[in-house]
Amino acid sequence: MDDFTFKRKSQIRSTGSRLFSRSDTPRNRSNFEGGYVSTSLRKHNDEEFDGDVTEWTMEGTGSRVAYDDFTTIDWIHDFAKERARQRRLHQQKGIRGKLNILFDAMEGWIVVLAVGLASGILAAIIDITSDWLSDLKEGYCETAFYLNRRFCCLGYDDEQDECNEWITWNTALQARSAAAEFWTNYLFYIIFSTLFATIAAYLVKTYSPYSAGSGIPEIKTILGGFVIRKFLGWWTLIIKSIGVCLVAASSLCLGKEGPLIHLACCCGNIIPRIFPKFRYNEAKKREVLSAAAAAGVSVAFGAPIGGVLFSLEEVSYYFPFRTMWRSFFCAMVAAVSLAFMNPFRTGKLVLFQVVYDREWHAFELFFFALLGVMGGLYGALFIRMNLKIAAFRRDSWLRFFSVHEVVVVSVLTSIVSYLNIFMRVNPSELVANLFRECVGGDYHNLCNHVNHWEPTLLLLIASILKFFLTALTFGLKVPAGIWLPSMAIGACFGRAIGLAVHAWHRYNPDFWLFASCAPEGRCITPGMYAMVGAAATFGGITRMTVSLVVIMFELTGALTYVLPIMITVMISKWVGDAFDKEGIYDGWIRMNEYPFLDTKVEYVYNTLASQVMTRVEDLIVITATGHSLDSLEKLLQNVDFKGFPVVHNARDMLLTGYISRSELRYAIDKARKKPGISLSSPCYFSNNLPLLDDSIFIDFQPWMDQTPITVSHKFPMEMVIELFRKMGLRYVLVTNKGQLLGLITKKDMMNKILKIL
Amino acid sequence: MDDFTFKRKSQIRSTGSRLFSRSDTPRNRSNFEGGYVSTSLRKHNDEEFDGDVTEWTMEGTGSRVAYDDFTTIDWIHDFAKERARQRRLHQQKGIRGKLNILFDAMEGWIVVLAVGLASGILAAIIDITSDWLSDLKEGYCETAFYLNRRFCCLGYDDEQDECNEWITWNTALQARSAAAEFWTNYLFYIIFSTLFATIAAYLVKTYSPYSAGSGIPEIKTILGGFVIRKFLGWWTLIIKSIGVCLVAASSLCLGKEGPLIHLACCCGNIIPRIFPKFRYNEAKKREVLSAAAAAGVSVAFGAPIGGVLFSLEEVSYYFPFRTMWRSFFCAMVAAVSLAFMNPFRTGKLVLFQVVYDREWHAFELFFFALLGVMGGLYGALFIRMNLKIAAFRRDSWLRFFSVHEVVVVSVLTSIVSYLNIFMRVNPSELVANLFRECVGGDYHNLCNHVNHWEPTLLLLIASILKFFLTALTFGLKVPAGIWLPSMAIGACFGRAIGLAVHAWHRYNPDFWLFASCAPEGRCITPGMYAMVGAAATFGGITRMTVSLVVIMFELTGALTYVLPIMITVMISKWVGDAFDKEGIYDGWIRMNEYPFLDTKVEYVYNTLASQVMTRVEDLIVITATGHSLDSLEKLLQNVDFKGFPVVHNARDMLLTGYISRSELRYAIDKARKKPGISLSSPCYFSNNLPLLDDSIFIDFQPWMDQTPITVSHKFPMEMVIELFRKMGLRYVLVTNKGQLLGLITKKDMMNKILKIL
Repeated sequence: MDDFTFKRKSQIRSTGSRLFSRSDTPRNRSNFEGGYVSTSLRKHNDEEFDGDVTEWTMEGTGSRVAYDDFTTIDWIHDFAKERARQRRLHQQKGIRGKLNILFDAMEGWIVVLAVGLASGILAAIIDITSDWLSDLKEGYCETAFYLNRRFCCLGYDDEQDECNEWITWNTALQARSAAAEFWTNYLFYIIFSTLFATIAAYLVKTYSPYSAGSGIPEIKTILGGFVIRKFLGWWTLIIKSIGVCLVAASSLCLGKEGPLIHLACCCGNIIPRIFPKFRYNEAKKREVLSAAAAAGVSVAFGAPIGGVLFSLEEVSYYFPFRTMWRSFFCAMVAAVSLAFMNPFRTGKLVLFQVVYDREWHAFELFFFALLGVMGGLYGALFIRMNLKIAAFRRDSWLRFFSVHEVVVVSVLTSIVSYLNIFMRVNPSELVANLFRECVGGDYHNLCNHVNHWEPTLLLLIASILKFFLTALTFGLKVPAGIWLPSMAIGACFGRAIGLAVHAWHRYNPDFWLFASCAPEGRCITPGMYAMVGAAATFGGITRMTVSLVVIMFELTGALTYVLPIMITVMISKWVGDAFDKEGIYDGWIRMNEYPFLDTKVEYVYNTLASQVMTRVEDLIVITATGHSLDSLEKLLQNVDFKGFPVVHNARDMLLTGYISRSELRYAIDKARKKPGISLSSPCYFSNNLPLLDDSIFIDFQPWMDQTPITVSHKFPMEMVIELFRKMGLRYVLVTNKGQLLGLITKKDMMNKILKIL
Repeated sequence: MDDFTFKRKSQIRSTGSRLFSRSDTPRNRSNFEGGYVSTSLRKHNDEEFDGDVTEWTMEGTGSRVAYDDFTTIDWIHDFAKERARQRRLHQQKGIRGKLNILFDAMEGWIVVLAVGLASGILAAIIDITSDWLSDLKEGYCETAFYLNRRFCCLGYDDEQDECNEWITWNTALQARSAAAEFWTNYLFYIIFSTLFATIAAYLVKTYSPYSAGSGIPEIKTILGGFVIRKFLGWWTLIIKSIGVCLVAASSLCLGKEGPLIHLACCCGNIIPRIFPKFRYNEAKKREVLSAAAAAGVSVAFGAPIGGVLFSLEEVSYYFPFRTMWRSFFCAMVAAVSLAFMNPFRTGKLVLFQVVYDREWHAFELFFFALLGVMGGLYGALFIRMNLKIAAFRRDSWLRFFSVHEVVVVSVLTSIVSYLNIFMRVNPSELVANLFRECVGGDYHNLCNHVNHWEPTLLLLIASILKFFLTALTFGLKVPAGIWLPSMAIGACFGRAIGLAVHAWHRYNPDFWLFASCAPEGRCITPGMYAMVGAAATFGGITRMTVSLVVIMFELTGALTYVLPIMITVMISKWVGDAFDKEGIYDGWIRMNEYPFLDTKVEYVYNTLASQVMTRVEDLIVITATGHSLDSLEKLLQNVDFKGFPVVHNARDMLLTGYISRSELRYAIDKARKKPGISLSSPCYFSNNLPLLDDSIFIDFQPWMDQTPITVSHKFPMEMVIELFRKMGLRYVLVTNKGQLLGLITKKDMMNKILKIL
């Protein structure tokens, strides 16, 4: 194992200027790095102890003693650790040193390469499997049961030939009348949908509760510096992969985009474990996770650039340029590997490719603005309703019956959906067809120029029903994304508006509004309205801007419509923000009370640090001198504080440092195993040692944060928040002229914020 | 004038917890906000003094006393000021208060709307003017001299009709023979080119030296928090607008994209001056500038999203989400207004629209990678060469002859360029034609299937000559961008490679490499190679990634080629970075020694704060008590430090605060105008006042930064850099247990960094 990784936090920060108040001889100086200074021991058997000293130095809490579950990480320490590792690495001489440096620099790229590849391959497998399961609702392949319809009928021309290998359940059961056919299909649709959903719910409940939902709120929280163990582990990866195939094939109103991002992040968590550099550094790990999130969007929508921007705009907390380039690379690799796997056999990365030959007209901006307003309203309403339902689900008896609930919702959805053709098909197919222009082929009467009203009405009904069903579904204990259902709702509504405007133009071509239309031919492109509508609802629900527009491009390839889409998304965001400032993910984060410090919200308070801090009277403070192993041990047994400020002495209360509980624990355990150490051995946290001779003492300084960030007690609270946010701190100490007054931890502060909001 | 803007820095930070060591009565407390506490005066005429107190409170240095030219701004103070203004605003009651709040919230959007509109209109005017000037090299419009060729010949079909209104110089001079025609054209080309360039150079030299170059390095520096007065002022706007039209019409190898960004930023600097909120807050001003930079790219390339990302990735220093949304909006407005002005009469925002009907093949990735490598090499070479030339220009006698130099380079360029058709036309037309596929029309033999070698050779020559000419030209004292010339060089090279591969496939269709090509029809799309080549050189020179790919999309609309472009850009960046880590703008920033703290570079030193700081012995420190107006006045006269730490007393050296020179100056001047104040009046920087009765004293606390950010002397230097970068500090004070040890300013630190690098 690479020994640079075992560099202690505190030692890192003190390298170079350690002041020696005693035993400051050159010999000792060189040895001092050990930190474990025991004058008498060193005198007697210097060589023997040397190994021990190194061990004591190397094995730092920052590396072995990991953060506890559900705690916040300390970015600043993790980066300091990484920098120290880098420095150490660069001190190596010779060819081997150079090679080590080179390999170290490549490690990050290798990891994201692997994560990108894994995400792409996983996404392809999921696409193929869920396609097959989805087709199973209608029939099966006679030649090989494991083939989906498209592969089963490979070689047949879709429009002309009848595919004989594909046996529908009708044929299998030899339904005689049209009514029997209808009921057979209906029944199989309901049965298979519910079966898939139930299995998924059962798997999630039994094996991996973390697999439920989209996972994005949790990923945001994790990237914000919170530790949730197992959320990105093997079990989640396996169960969620299976679950997402099942639910995507069921009739539930949910998408597989969110879960795909979660799965990519699982890869981004598991793969870097091979490298100690990432394994033992939570901050570095988060850099890979940001890249993995980009890869997730890249494979979910075939939108590599959109993925990078999504990672930047929506989920990531700390996004330096290095991470941007890695995300870019990771998303690219994921897209390439998906393209080479080619699960849809279209050879294209663009999912819902549209080719419109008409430009948009200025007057249409009015309708696009209308769609934007509707999207914003939809977002605001949906978020409120969904959160209400979710809160009820969490707090009521319903929480014990998560599988039953899925069964009920699934049956309900299947019954309703089958009756409306626009709800029956899976949302991805629906969106693709709603976006499509009426050139060469019709799709369920959408291009019927005589009867406009039937499809318009059906679309409106579909969008309204889908709205309620989705609000009910998102939050069930199954893997579930919200993007595609939202887009489907917006696309239905948008296409309906488009059809209406089209009809209006058809019947009143001379109306002043249509003056800019060419005198002959079509003027309105309803497919474009569907696209704009989808962008509006998508924006209303997530409140993304730039990344959303780019995702829409990459999804449709319709670059000519950049301006309408931008305007709509902006309006949708404004309208949504007028109701609530938070998108769906932030809403879920708030509901689940995750400690996430939103970088988008600006806090304006009239509060000072001294009013928020935990006062020194309520803290346990360690004095730099006067402790023994025994007294520290007792301290740990009696109180459960997560960390302790260290002061010079109880009288002057001058701040010396800060030691976290886990580091203290570890250092004590370590020390007790040393020869010659007893429970009464004195422990020091300072260089100003009393003159003891020949007695064995333990220097805790290397284990202590010797340079904690301090603020004055008059510091305004918003500045403290900025410090936490931008520097990624876990705690700050409040002092006045060097004197310790109190402590503010990230969690304390967030509790305060939540209370005020 | 809005009085919220006159809120003092230091008062802001102390609101809420001021401790009163004396005269702490309820009456005084309410008055204390005045800061100017004069016990005796207050006793006598409370009412009369009240007005004065308010004035003293309102008129803070943060507002009136602006930053000096060529100094760094203090983001943290500016944001604190803004927050205090916000708080004050929100305290207003009633409908008027609500309206004020609403208007204040809208102000930011109104400003970016205006900036977007102005940028769009300005860009349209520049496009039209430079088109006209450019056509003037060939001839003039008979019906109206101010029309360019396209408008002059409006109504004529380009391909069939001869446009009689457009008189070429040939016709005007009645050239008889082909040789005479050639020489006439050649001569007019040289004369007009040089004339335009010379006028531009003269204008720049005489009226506005800041108009030279692309302006992007300076904008980066300004956005990083440096004050360069007049760089974004009216004169720059006017002269650079005229200059860019002239040089774009000349034959010099430069583009107008960089200057357009600079001009948009000028709008973004001038327009917000109307609003005090921006006028008096340098940090807020920079938020508008970020949006303006996005608008600049938006109009330069018709790439609104690319603009936002450019602003984010390349130029902006501080880019919160609020700024991202505003940039998005600003870029959108700019694009819409440009589209409605429609200077090219194409009705399209997409500048170099391409429509390829062929997919790319996996084997082509090899050639794209080759183009990426070439792009990276080009970038590295170009930057080195260009910086060498620029340094020579700056340090030698050449700097006195900037106009003459432009004349020489212009004549040279014209002579060389006219002889190669690919160099003769302006780069924008060239790039558009090189990207275009061979469908319906040829462009100078590019689609000639018989003779591949002639155009290939011409393209290669063009790309090599353009490389040297551009390196010579970029840095001349005329408005000059580097983007389009770079793209032109890459497009020439790429198309040449494309033609070569195409020829190879044509003569050896059975070669194993081409196995994936369809048996009949064309397989290679040389236009795509040009596009990829342009992206590679563009990337090599600027080292942008995400924003570059998005700009390429928006420029060409070719979304199918996202993967080849991404791969090429990544490789180009890697190859370029292997030589030098810096892009062209960073190179210029370094050469000009601008104080820009690059957010992309990671500094790994083994240094501590105590080793970098200016030690307290070398500083002038003010004690909290014991000063009089006279002694402070003398202090200011005798030393020219920019600021002074304040300590409790000379013995304990406990840090109390920090006061900058300009604030101290202002406070003294202010105080001297008060009645009853004499030169011997005592001045205090602390609440621990000695018990004086009835004497008039001046409280300097409100003018002092009472909560300066402090770090421990053992703090590692990289952490200090992070603090400066992320919190936008101007200085930190180094303490040990509350005792002042030294001071680190941003400038000091950057000097240290420059030395180490």
